[in-house]
Amino acid sequence: MRKSATVAALLACAASAPLAAKEGMFTPDQLPEIAEDLRETGLEIDADALSDLTGFPMGAVVSLGGCSASFVSEIGLVVTNHHCARGSVQYNSTAENNYLENGFLAKAFEEELPAAPGSRIYVTTALSDVTDRVRDGIDAMTPTERYDAIEQRRKDITAECEEKAGYRCQVASFYGGAQYKLIERLEIRDVRIVYAPADSIGKYGGDIDNWMWPRHTGDFAFYRAYVAPDGSAADYSEDNVPYEPEHHLKVSASGLKEGDFVMAAGYPGSTSRYATLAEVENTFSWSYPTYVTLVNDWIDTIEEAAPEGSDARVKYESLLAGLNNFEKNTRGQLEGARRVGLVERRAEREEALAAWIAADDSRAAYGEAIAGLQALSEESATKARQAFWYNFATRPTLLSTAQRLYRLAHERQKEDALRDPGFQDRDMTFFRQGMQAIDRRYDASVDKAQWLLFLDTYMDEPAGNRVAVFDKALGLNADLDEAALSAKLDAYYAGTTLGDVDTRLALMEATPAELEALDDPFMQLAVALYEYERGLEAEGEERAGRAQALRPAYMEAITQWQRSQGLLTYPDANSTLRVTYGTVLGGSPKDGMAYLPFTTLEGILEKDTGEDPFNAPERQLQEIREKDYGKYYSAEVGSVPVNFLSDLDSTGGNSGSATLNARAELVGLLFDGTFESVNSDWDFDPRTTRTIHVDTRYMLWVMDKVDGAQGLIEEMDVVD
Amino acid sequence: MRKSATVAALLACAASAPLAAKEGMFTPDQLPEIAEDLRETGLEIDADALSDLTGFPMGAVVSLGGCSASFVSEIGLVVTNHHCARGSVQYNSTAENNYLENGFLAKAFEEELPAAPGSRIYVTTALSDVTDRVRDGIDAMTPTERYDAIEQRRKDITAECEEKAGYRCQVASFYGGAQYKLIERLEIRDVRIVYAPADSIGKYGGDIDNWMWPRHTGDFAFYRAYVAPDGSAADYSEDNVPYEPEHHLKVSASGLKEGDFVMAAGYPGSTSRYATLAEVENTFSWSYPTYVTLVNDWIDTIEEAAPEGSDARVKYESLLAGLNNFEKNTRGQLEGARRVGLVERRAEREEALAAWIAADDSRAAYGEAIAGLQALSEESATKARQAFWYNFATRPTLLSTAQRLYRLAHERQKEDALRDPGFQDRDMTFFRQGMQAIDRRYDASVDKAQWLLFLDTYMDEPAGNRVAVFDKALGLNADLDEAALSAKLDAYYAGTTLGDVDTRLALMEATPAELEALDDPFMQLAVALYEYERGLEAEGEERAGRAQALRPAYMEAITQWQRSQGLLTYPDANSTLRVTYGTVLGGSPKDGMAYLPFTTLEGILEKDTGEDPFNAPERQLQEIREKDYGKYYSAEVGSVPVNFLSDLDSTGGNSGSATLNARAELVGLLFDGTFESVNSDWDFDPRTTRTIHVDTRYMLWVMDKVDGAQGLIEEMDVVD
Repeated sequence: MRKSATVAALLACAASAPLAAKEGMFTPDQLPEIAEDLRETGLEIDADALSDLTGFPMGAVVSLGGCSASFVSEIGLVVTNHHCARGSVQYNSTAENNYLENGFLAKAFEEELPAAPGSRIYVTTALSDVTDRVRDGIDAMTPTERYDAIEQRRKDITAECEEKAGYRCQVASFYGGAQYKLIERLEIRDVRIVYAPADSIGKYGGDIDNWMWPRHTGDFAFYRAYVAPDGSAADYSEDNVPYEPEHHLKVSASGLKEGDFVMAAGYPGSTSRYATLAEVENTFSWSYPTYVTLVNDWIDTIEEAAPEGSDARVKYESLLAGLNNFEKNTRGQLEGARRVGLVERRAEREEALAAWIAADDSRAAYGEAIAGLQALSEESATKARQAFWYNFATRPTLLSTAQRLYRLAHERQKEDALRDPGFQDRDMTFFRQGMQAIDRRYDASVDKAQWLLFLDTYMDEPAGNRVAVFDKALGLNADLDEAALSAKLDAYYAGTTLGDVDTRLALMEATPAELEALDDPFMQLAVALYEYERGLEAEGEERAGRAQALRPAYMEAITQWQRSQGLLTYPDANSTLRVTYGTVLGGSPKDGMAYLPFTTLEGILEKDTGEDPFNAPERQLQEIREKDYGKYYSAEVGSVPVNFLSDLDSTGGNSGSATLNARAELVGLLFDGTFESVNSDWDFDPRTTRTIHVDTRYMLWVMDKVDGAQGLIEEMDVVD
Repeated sequence: MRKSATVAALLACAASAPLAAKEGMFTPDQLPEIAEDLRETGLEIDADALSDLTGFPMGAVVSLGGCSASFVSEIGLVVTNHHCARGSVQYNSTAENNYLENGFLAKAFEEELPAAPGSRIYVTTALSDVTDRVRDGIDAMTPTERYDAIEQRRKDITAECEEKAGYRCQVASFYGGAQYKLIERLEIRDVRIVYAPADSIGKYGGDIDNWMWPRHTGDFAFYRAYVAPDGSAADYSEDNVPYEPEHHLKVSASGLKEGDFVMAAGYPGSTSRYATLAEVENTFSWSYPTYVTLVNDWIDTIEEAAPEGSDARVKYESLLAGLNNFEKNTRGQLEGARRVGLVERRAEREEALAAWIAADDSRAAYGEAIAGLQALSEESATKARQAFWYNFATRPTLLSTAQRLYRLAHERQKEDALRDPGFQDRDMTFFRQGMQAIDRRYDASVDKAQWLLFLDTYMDEPAGNRVAVFDKALGLNADLDEAALSAKLDAYYAGTTLGDVDTRLALMEATPAELEALDDPFMQLAVALYEYERGLEAEGEERAGRAQALRPAYMEAITQWQRSQGLLTYPDANSTLRVTYGTVLGGSPKDGMAYLPFTTLEGILEKDTGEDPFNAPERQLQEIREKDYGKYYSAEVGSVPVNFLSDLDSTGGNSGSATLNARAELVGLLFDGTFESVNSDWDFDPRTTRTIHVDTRYMLWVMDKVDGAQGLIEEMDVVD
C-alpha cells in the first residue's frame, strides 16, 4: 500500500502540475497584483518589497548583459553561472596557468584578474514609464512615420538619460509596444574574476548533459565589481576599489526541499508566447525544419574544410559548437512541438480568443486588429521565406563586414542623434570590438566553402526569390559552372584587404565615397547591394510600423481576455528584470519516467568516467567516496544536493539568475532548462517545463571541501 | 508536505530495494523451503503447489526451446512473446500477405498456419533426480575419465528416456555438477500460429527501445499445439487435433498495481552468478572489451562488403542485427560493471567466503577446492585468450561447415550411443536444418571480407598464440602480403563445392576417407586442422573434468555459507524451469531519475512518429485518442497499462514466461530487462535489476479494440 501511494502521488504531481506550475515572467511591478498567490505558494516576505527595483532584494540583482547575476557581499562580490564567466577564465588562461583546467581562485584582492574585454555589470538605478512620450500621436501616422517616430523618441530618451556619465540606458518595449519603460543602469566597467571552479566541476557533463536531467553541473563563478575611489563607474585601474552595493543577498546553507517555494530574479532575453498562429506555423512548419537541414549541411561543410587538428578548426570550434547546440535545440523544439501539439494548441487559443471577442460587440476593434496582425504575420513570413537563402548567400564574413562599414560611413553623414541604432557613438566600442574579433574566427578557405554551400542552395531557388542586383554583381546565371563560380569566389578572397584588422579599423573613419572608390571586391559587392538592402529594410520598417499599431491592440485583447479568466498577463521577455516563482518540483518527462527533483554527490561518482566531460577532480571524488558532506548534508536526499528542478518560467538570459527561497535568501543559481522545455519560449507547457538550478549547498560544499575558498564563504552572509 | 513524502517514499524504495528485491531463479522444488517468504511477499496460493511440475499452475508452463510460454485454454492455446513467434509469422508472410506488417489472426482452426520449421512446444511430464547414477564413483577418476563418464551416463539416461516415442529428454546439471536431474518432456511438433499483432504493435520501439524503459511493446502472440487424434506428438497433419493440456492459466483482466506480488515461471537460459573472481576479471577486463573492438570492426567490414540495398545485405541483416545487439549489450555490461564495481563486489564476496571458511577448520576442504578452481579459472582464461583469434580465423562459414561434416563422418564410425552430443541420431534433424540454413545467410564475398579481417588480427598475434598447422596449411608467413593472401582466399571460394546445399546434405553420409579425398579447399583445411582441434577439445575436456570435481565443492561452500546467513542458494540458470518472485516496482536507474512501474497507452501517442519502429496502427492511435479504454482501464495509472516493471530475476530464455499474480493468474508476459540489468547474469544488483513485462490488460485491449480477436478472448478464461 505504501508503494502504491508513492506512484499515485508522483502521478498526481505530474497530473496536477498544470494547476501548480507558475507560468509567467512577471515584471517586478506586477507582483503586488498577485501578492495573494505568492503568499499561498509560500513567499514569506512582503510581495510589495519585490516590486522595488532598488530596494531589497531586487537591488542585489544585476545584469551582465546576456546573463544574470547578483551581489552576495557588501564589497561587490557577484555570483553568476560558470558558463557566464568562463570567457573571462579563458581570457586569463595560458598554457602554464590553465585556469579552465585547474580552476581559478584569488586568495586576495590583488590576485583578482580583469574579466574579458567588454565585461560589464549593470546595476539598475531607476525605472520610469515613458509610454506617453514614445506613443504620442502615433495612431494617426503612416506605418513608416510611426516606426521612425518611435525609434527616434527611444533614441532621444536614451541619450538624455545617458548624459549622466557612467550610466547605460535603455527604452524597453513591453506588450508588443503598448508600453515603454526607461531603465537606467550604472555600467560597471572594471569587472574582475575572483573564483571559478575547474571546468571539470563548472562544466561537468559538458555538451552531453546540456539541457539534460539528471544534471551534476557546478555552474557557478564569482566576479567582483570595481569602481573609481569616488564610487563612479570607471575603466580598469589599479586605483579602483570594490563597489559597495546598496543591497546584497544572504546565502542559504540549508537550501530547499521538494515542494518548497522558490523564485528567480533575472533578465530573460526573449520569448514568443504571444506569437500568432501564422508565426508559429511558419516557424515550426518551415523555418525550423529548413534550419535543421541547412545547419547539418553547414556543419559538414565546416568539418570538411577545417579538419580536426587544423589551425582553421580552432577558429571555427566556437561556431561549430554553436551550430551543434542550435541544431540540438531546434530538433528538440520540433520534437516538443509535435509532442504537445503546439500548433493545435495555438489554434485553439486563437479560437477561444475569437469566441471571447465575438461574445461582446464592444470588442469588435480587437477582432479587426487581430485579423490585421494575422495578415501581416503571413506577409512577413512570405517575405522571410523569399529572403531566406539570399540572406545566407550574402553571409560571407568580409561581405558582412564591408556592408557594416559602408553602412556606418553613410550613417556618419548624419548627426549622432539621427543615426540608426547600432551606429551611434554609444555603439562604437562594441562596433570596434566586433571588427577586431573577426581575426579569431575567420579563415578564408573555410569561409569560401560555406559561401559555396549557401550560393548553391540560393541558385536553386525560383526566380521570385532571386535578387537581380546580386545575381548581376556575382554573374550568377544558368551557364555558370561549379569551377567558374569557385574561381570567381577565389578572386574575392585574393583581392580583398578586409582580412586585415588595421584596415578594417581604419575604414571605420572612411566616407561613402572613399569606400566606393576602394579596389576591394567585397566592398564593391557591398556598395552594389546597398540600395537593394535599404529597400528591404524600409519594407521591414513599414511592416514593423503596422505591427506597432496592431500588436498593442492584440495584447490588450489577450490581457482583457485573460483577466476575465482571473489570469494576469505578463509581457514577453525583453532582457529586462523579471521574477518567476513556483516550487521545487520533479516531473514526468515522458510516460513511465520521472525526474526526481534533486541530484546528489553520488551521481557524480556514478557518471564519472575520468574522461572529459565526466572527469571530476580526484580530490572531489575522494571527498564523495568518504561521504564528507559537512554541514551541507540534506537528510531528505541523503547526501549533498547538487542540482535541482523547479517549475519556474525561464529562458536564455536567465542564466546566473539568483534563485531565492521564501525569505529571499540565495538557495541556488538558475542555469538551464530540461530538453522537454526547449519550446517553452513559444508555449509554456506546465506538464513538461522544468528549470535547472545549481544548489547553494553544492556550491558551498565545493568551495569548502574541494577548492579551499573559505575566504569567500566568510565574506558572504551564509545563513542556515 | 505531500510532495516531500512523494520523493522520500521514492528514495526509500530505491534505498530499501536491496532488502525487498527477490534475487533468485529457484527450481520449483525449492519453493516449499521459502514458503514463508513467498507468503509474506504476497503469494496467496500454497507454495507446495508450485513445486509440482505437472500440477497447477506449473503444468501450464511450457518451453519453446529458447523461449518460454504457457497454455491459456483447454484446447492447446499457447501464449508467448511476439518476438518468440515472429519467425513463424515471417515464415508465412509473402509480398501479398505481409503478416509482419499487417498482423495475423486466424478466425477459425482451419486458418491457423504451420509455425516455422523446427518449432516445438515442450510440455514437461516428469522429473527425477539422477545424481547418484551420474556421479557414481567419479571422485576416484582422472579428470578425463570423469568427463567421459559423466557425458556417457547423461547420454545413456537420455536415450533410455527417449525410448518413449514423442518425448524429448534432458539430463540437466545443477550447482556446477553437484546435482543432475532427468527432465522428460512431450515434444509437440505440430505447432501453428494463431494470432500475432502487427510488428507495429508487437515490435513497437524496435531496436531503439530494446532493453529500454519506458517501453510500449505489445510483445505477445499465440500458438496452438496440435497432436495426433490419439493424443500423441506427431508431425504436421490435417488430421491432427488441438492438444488438450492438463492445466492452463486463467488470464487476469484486472492486473496488478505497484507493490503487488508477482512471480514468473519460465526457462532462463544461462547465468554466471557463481563465476569466480578470475572468470569475472577475464570477462570484464579482457573478453568483453576485446569483443567490443572486434565487433565494431566486424560490423564495419560487413557493411562495406554488403552495402545497403545489395542482395548480399539481405543475407547479413540478421547477423548485423545480432552483432549490434551484442555490441550494445556488451557495452552496457561493461558500463554497468564499472558503475556497480562488479569486480570489486566479486572480490569482496570471495574474501567474505574465505573468511567464513577460515573460521572453522572443518571447512578446510572447501578452501582447497576453491584454490583449485581459481587456478583452473586462470588457466582456462589463459587458454581462451590464446585461442581467441585462432577461433575467429577459422570461422569462415564453409570451413566451419567442412569441420562439422568431417567430425560427423568420424562420429558416425561409432555406434550411436557413443557418439559425442550433437552428432547422435537424435540430433540429425537439427544438423540437417543447420546445413540447409546456410544458403540464407552466406555470401562468398562478404564471408571473405570477414575472414580477411580475422586473419589480419590473428597474424598480429605473438608466436605463442599462432597455430603451426593452420599457418602451414594457409601459408601464413611474414612474407605473405595483402594481395597474395587475398588471392589465396579467392582460390578457396572458387574451388569449393560446399556452397551447394545438396552437396552439403549428401556429404552428411560420407566416410572420413571420402571427405579426405574430396578436392575441396575448405574440406582439406578442415582435415588438416582435425587432429589439432581434437587436441584442443581433449584439453578442454580435461579441464572440464577437473572442474567437475572442484565446482560442486565450491557450490557446496557457497550453499553452506549462504545458509549460515539465512539465504537459500539457487542454481545458475540452465534452461530448466525456474520460478522467480517479487513485486511490481519502479526504480532509480540513476541519480535524479526514476522509472515509474507502469507505462500507459498515452505513451504510445507520445512516442509515435509514424515511422518504423514508432508507427502504431492508425486504428490504435485513434482508439487511444478517443480514450476507449473499455474494461482494461486502471484507475491507478489513469489509462490502460501497457508494460510494467518488477524486481524479478530473469535472463535470456525467460522471454515469454508467464507472469503470475498471487493467485497464479496470468497478468503479463515477461519479455525483457532494463539496460541497467544487462550484467545481472553475473551479479544480481537489486538496486538496478528490473524485468519488463507486457500487461495482460494491454494484450486484451489490443485483442478487443484493435485486432478484433474477441474469439480468442472468449476461448480463454478471462477473470477480473
